[in-house]
Amino acid sequence: MANLQDVAQRAKVSKTTVSRYLNGSLELPKRTAEAIDTAIRELDYVPNAHARRLSLGRSETIALMVPDISTPFFSTFVASVEAEADRRNLSLSLHATLNRREREISYLDHIRQGRADGLIFITNHAGDDALADKINTAGPCVVVDEDVPATRVPKLFCDNEAGGYAAGRHLAEIGHRHFLFIGGVDEMISGARRHAGFLRGVHEIAGDAARVERACGPYTFEAGRVAARAFVARGDNRPTAIFATSDELLIGLYEVLRDSNLSVPHDVSIVGFDDVGPLHLFAPAVTAVRQPVRELGKRALELLLDHKPEEDGTLPEEELLPVTLIERDSVAPPIRSA
Amino acid sequence: MANLQDVAQRAKVSKTTVSRYLNGSLELPKRTAEAIDTAIRELDYVPNAHARRLSLGRSETIALMVPDISTPFFSTFVASVEAEADRRNLSLSLHATLNRREREISYLDHIRQGRADGLIFITNHAGDDALADKINTAGPCVVVDEDVPATRVPKLFCDNEAGGYAAGRHLAEIGHRHFLFIGGVDEMISGARRHAGFLRGVHEIAGDAARVERACGPYTFEAGRVAARAFVARGDNRPTAIFATSDELLIGLYEVLRDSNLSVPHDVSIVGFDDVGPLHLFAPAVTAVRQPVRELGKRALELLLDHKPEEDGTLPEEELLPVTLIERDSVAPPIRSA
Repeated sequence: MANLQDVAQRAKVSKTTVSRYLNGSLELPKRTAEAIDTAIRELDYVPNAHARRLSLGRSETIALMVPDISTPFFSTFVASVEAEADRRNLSLSLHATLNRREREISYLDHIRQGRADGLIFITNHAGDDALADKINTAGPCVVVDEDVPATRVPKLFCDNEAGGYAAGRHLAEIGHRHFLFIGGVDEMISGARRHAGFLRGVHEIAGDAARVERACGPYTFEAGRVAARAFVARGDNRPTAIFATSDELLIGLYEVLRDSNLSVPHDVSIVGFDDVGPLHLFAPAVTAVRQPVRELGKRALELLLDHKPEEDGTLPEEELLPVTLIERDSVAPPIRSA
Repeated sequence: MANLQDVAQRAKVSKTTVSRYLNGSLELPKRTAEAIDTAIRELDYVPNAHARRLSLGRSETIALMVPDISTPFFSTFVASVEAEADRRNLSLSLHATLNRREREISYLDHIRQGRADGLIFITNHAGDDALADKINTAGPCVVVDEDVPATRVPKLFCDNEAGGYAAGRHLAEIGHRHFLFIGGVDEMISGARRHAGFLRGVHEIAGDAARVERACGPYTFEAGRVAARAFVARGDNRPTAIFATSDELLIGLYEVLRDSNLSVPHDVSIVGFDDVGPLHLFAPAVTAVRQPVRELGKRALELLLDHKPEEDGTLPEEELLPVTLIERDSVAPPIRSA
């Protein structure tokens, strides 16, 4: 039986072009469109059922599950998916799971009961096999932002390792040797990869002179405050630089430092991660690794609509979107030796 | 036929207590619960169909439509509704309409087709009769934040007039006489009421000496930037105080002022509105009218679940939640006469 690749070869275009043409997301010159139509007819190509259901596109509903809708990162991500869905005439049904497994399972059951034709799934806790099974049988799906390891679906993440590396290298280059890394756990790829990248960055510049401490925890305001209070309460052997690995952690940290006798960047340098909130207006403006959150939302929907799992049996490789270090006013050389 | 009022009278409790008891949102002492059960049985009271559908509650789905999910105000509102829905074991289906009428109509049609059992509706544009008709026939519904005038459903707003009044009075008391009001249009109650309240506040203190200019527009970053650029470009007869009536307007305004040669509050005093974003960390920290956005979300769901439209023919009065002026560092006396 002919597959998408056969159609693409005969029409002399890429698989992606055929796929996007079929789901209506790409306007083609008349001659190209006719070449694809002819190839489909001659090869008797039939798109698979799931793919066709989605590629019909009009008035279909996509479900989007996120752990928390109130953070700038997730709310901006959701807005970006909504804009892309609107451009494609799709409806979107959003569900905030409060990052709780039973609520995720409950919404996944809704979706399996036919209330949505495709799913973009984000969790912020370590996954398990039962959750992965539900996702694997929910129909067309992509997993975004954090991995659910046993899922067999396309995956889309930001390049967490490169973000950690950029932050670590930047702080070490300006002279820091003693660091505090706040946030994440090794069971989640954002935590593990940002930490691994940070270590790589600081050691590349500072070698064995670098000392990195870590305060693990969720990406919340309160976790930022807790880590900051412990930092302020320390005496002389305080780290001279902090990497706060989410906007929420950074905001909690800034609140506590503002009320302390420590000033940024004179007494402590800070690099954030996410850079979705208005960090450029903070006192002082925050140097941070920016996640391309709008691109992430747009790309998640593209992957969901354009990926055809049944074309071949292999799993797609995970896709990483690049991050960028935005330099502002919260980093300076250390004033005392580490 | 007995109604809710009859049950409440016989059980010697309030209508609200009976209503909340029936929908499972209120735990009562055993004796009170028995009194209500007895009254229902003796009076042969049957909750109306819509009310019963919602009051059964378990695994039902509530739809929530907001114009934009990416702003701190709406994303925090949605998170609050989600938390309250979770507490009541309800599912929530969120839809971001991009503040476009045709997308609102499309989602309302989804809901009429039985995809939700109740609706919380927010728009950020002036409504019309066709939209109102769709809302009136969508089943149980509450309208929140902005009015859709011809709708016959419970309505829940923040006290916009009182918020404008507090801002105007505060700026006038500290000595300002020449003001710029940014945002909103008279066709929307948030714009009309915040402006009316602001005028009342400044005139109460300053009488005829007060001069209020207005830059109408949507509640967006870009509208804030546009108004700010026009403000900066003016010469000597610049207002000495600005009331920016949303977090987005305030952020756009701050960006432009930061890049100008005008400093806050030395050259211009500023009061914001919403205070959901991290305005306390801005340089300088922003004085603002705070909307009780979490309470608004919780109360919206309560109104939806507890309101029984068919009990009597009268429309409920709109409900207003109080706002609070939070004083920080962006207001000072004017340095030159107005």
